[in-house]
Amino acid sequence: MKLVIVRHGESAYNELNLFSGWEDISLTAKGIQEAKEAGKQLAQQKMIFDYAFTSVLKRSIRSLNYILEEMDQEWVPVHKTWRLNERSYGALQRLNKAETAKEQGEERVSRWRKSYDALPPLLDPSDPRHPSHDRRYQSMDQRILPAGESLKTTLDRVLPCWTDEIAPRLLAGNNVLLVSHRNTLRALVKYLENISDDDIVNVDVPTGIPVIYHFDSQLSIVSKKELGTAKKGGKSLSQ
Amino acid sequence: MKLVIVRHGESAYNELNLFSGWEDISLTAKGIQEAKEAGKQLAQQKMIFDYAFTSVLKRSIRSLNYILEEMDQEWVPVHKTWRLNERSYGALQRLNKAETAKEQGEERVSRWRKSYDALPPLLDPSDPRHPSHDRRYQSMDQRILPAGESLKTTLDRVLPCWTDEIAPRLLAGNNVLLVSHRNTLRALVKYLENISDDDIVNVDVPTGIPVIYHFDSQLSIVSKKELGTAKKGGKSLSQ
Repeated sequence: MKLVIVRHGESAYNELNLFSGWEDISLTAKGIQEAKEAGKQLAQQKMIFDYAFTSVLKRSIRSLNYILEEMDQEWVPVHKTWRLNERSYGALQRLNKAETAKEQGEERVSRWRKSYDALPPLLDPSDPRHPSHDRRYQSMDQRILPAGESLKTTLDRVLPCWTDEIAPRLLAGNNVLLVSHRNTLRALVKYLENISDDDIVNVDVPTGIPVIYHFDSQLSIVSKKELGTAKKGGKSLSQ
Repeated sequence: MKLVIVRHGESAYNELNLFSGWEDISLTAKGIQEAKEAGKQLAQQKMIFDYAFTSVLKRSIRSLNYILEEMDQEWVPVHKTWRLNERSYGALQRLNKAETAKEQGEERVSRWRKSYDALPPLLDPSDPRHPSHDRRYQSMDQRILPAGESLKTTLDRVLPCWTDEIAPRLLAGNNVLLVSHRNTLRALVKYLENISDDDIVNVDVPTGIPVIYHFDSQLSIVSKKELGTAKKGGKSLSQ
């Protein structure tokens, strides 16, 4: 059984170097091409999927749609869940990363972005960027909506999706496609590959590059393969 | 609570005048435009959806994707089910409608296409067009896979999706979007509007035109509104 993870293609905020988090940002033309390219690569590998998972944010949903289109597997069931949303960047959302580093200091912003357990400045519940103002989260227990997350608390809310939804399907012999976000995938990769809190700082997931995990029946990783990295080279977190 | 039904945009087989049925045919460029237009019209009406349903055929799935994109509601949960597939046209699938009428006689083909309970010539299980050869149906009880359907047997397999999935959500106060196929929607409309076996012959559902049903708490129809019919005019079944 195989799990393929793909980070969505470039979004308008990636291009503008803004903090995205739970902001619902569209793909750029380049991002659409990246998603289609990921689909073509997976089609070349003759990957067959039984289920697909993504967030409730359109940059991931559309990337998934493009991938399934290129693979001619659009009929595959898709589960969209807030648990696979990007890490909430709290009050940093919509701010420019470089300008924030100038104002707040490089070290502080670097800690917010890279360290495992640093929380960003939190959103006030009255802030229009707080998820409580978004219709898609209104049927949820409002106490669980994040005002800002560390990578650690991101992993805390990703894990139930892994344990309850994804892992059982893999264990039943199914192949699963997961299209999500940089920090959501970093959190999951930390868990799957048992990466330490210190080492996860140096791990990144580039846009639009499928990573194929092959598991055994204990969900231990048998192999890991990145497709098409040669021509891209992952963006580093410092960019 | 509102149910909006939309027939997918024009497919390559619509354009070529071939019987489609369960064949998995792409949208044409015109079909994509029709789907986007349907989405724009629903956005203008400020329609808000809680759930969406479609078939496991890409002409409907992509139409739904375009509609949700135009409405900026891509996060809405989508349930894809074989129960909302087009009526299976059996051994007529891939054949040209006009040529078939020449070979088999107008009257016979007209009966296959219009009458409520006429079955088309059935597919042999060994025929590659039989759904048992398609991966998407392999986890189903193979005895239920149709080798050809009348409008009546189409309604029989659509109804469980209505009673078990769609109706409960409407009764819970949700708005539901259903993107499906000509005869699937004709079957459902027959049931919802209590149209007689004779009269359904004259009822058609044109591509890409949203129809909004408003129900009361007994699921009786309070109102029915077609969007944007003025500039299109539905294709008649005789075309």
